[in-house]
Amino acid sequence: MAVPLKAPAATPPDFDAAFRDRLDALFAWRRDVRCFRTTALDPAEYDALLAAACRAPSVGFSQPWRLVRVREAGRRAAIRAIFEAANSEALALQPAERAGLYARLKLAGLDDAPEHLAVFVEPEPETGHGLGRTTMPETIAYSAVLAIHTLWLAAAARGIGVGWVSILDPQAVAQALEVPAQWRLVGYLCIGYPAEASPVPELERAGWEQRRPLAALLVER
Amino acid sequence: MAVPLKAPAATPPDFDAAFRDRLDALFAWRRDVRCFRTTALDPAEYDALLAAACRAPSVGFSQPWRLVRVREAGRRAAIRAIFEAANSEALALQPAERAGLYARLKLAGLDDAPEHLAVFVEPEPETGHGLGRTTMPETIAYSAVLAIHTLWLAAAARGIGVGWVSILDPQAVAQALEVPAQWRLVGYLCIGYPAEASPVPELERAGWEQRRPLAALLVER
Repeated sequence: MAVPLKAPAATPPDFDAAFRDRLDALFAWRRDVRCFRTTALDPAEYDALLAAACRAPSVGFSQPWRLVRVREAGRRAAIRAIFEAANSEALALQPAERAGLYARLKLAGLDDAPEHLAVFVEPEPETGHGLGRTTMPETIAYSAVLAIHTLWLAAAARGIGVGWVSILDPQAVAQALEVPAQWRLVGYLCIGYPAEASPVPELERAGWEQRRPLAALLVER
Repeated sequence: MAVPLKAPAATPPDFDAAFRDRLDALFAWRRDVRCFRTTALDPAEYDALLAAACRAPSVGFSQPWRLVRVREAGRRAAIRAIFEAANSEALALQPAERAGLYARLKLAGLDDAPEHLAVFVEPEPETGHGLGRTTMPETIAYSAVLAIHTLWLAAAARGIGVGWVSILDPQAVAQALEVPAQWRLVGYLCIGYPAEASPVPELERAGWEQRRPLAALLVER
């Protein structure tokens, strides 16, 4: 279904200042998208996103990400119900002065996004032979996070939006999708053409949170 | 010390096919670097990497990454000792036929890389007000992983290599760096100009592991 990975060129590309400026712009404009147009994705572009995901780094080259393209209406309805249950609980945990804002934030593009991709991790892959994860086994899930992020950036470069839905019971999602018992959900992605573009996160625009200065996040030792 | 984030342009950039090709090349050539030249990084480029890291997405816009630039010789020696202890243990866990290969893989650029950056996560940041992580609290650490990956790509676009060292006791690293008690190590990065470039992962070149086809990693539901 998906295109194989193209063999890269034999000599390293020359990434010039113009490319770096555009890459910085890509980082700045890559949003967590919640409002999608329902237009179907171009199949070649969709395949390019999956190929990009598989270019991500992984601990011990273990490639532990497992991608589930969710297309069946019944499965999507089950995911929606799982989200609604978790969202109600999360809303109840917010103090009253924030709950109103929380309720207004459209937290999922589950209804409109033409593509749903559930990303799982295989926690004990044979691939990689365990290298690099003896003391920090969480790096295996981190590898799946890196695949999601690579896909996300490849999407943004194509004018395609990705929304990462984390307000979900991960075990319920695994059950609804009937994946192998040992797989663990890392992220559930809505993918489609965004209804709007902005260099400012939706949560910042909505007054939920502000960007922190680097000085507050950096120390020296 | 570090440059503030530049305000992005007011209109979305037009990412054209040429940019996308170069972005794909960036994904293909971004390596987990173990062999570094000892040349110091250009300070402006180093600052640009930290600024890029802070452009990463984060759950609830929580920005939970905490960056520790490790410069003191004593601290670096402590990290090296922590790596050596964990590496010996990991070596002992490999079957005999793999142990020789494992021992030959240069698993850390700790001695040569001019910059060391330890990336921690603040597991309970006030920022973000808990949004999005009620059911999947691991998304807070995932946000720090996304910061690492953003930095990694920004580095590769500048001809700068990053090596993620995970063969470490994370609590020992936290102690050696005297960080706040609640911070948890997500990744320890060696950063510097790489001694070589390749589109093929070192572990693949060394015969440790092969790339898996997308078809083996994708299912439909």
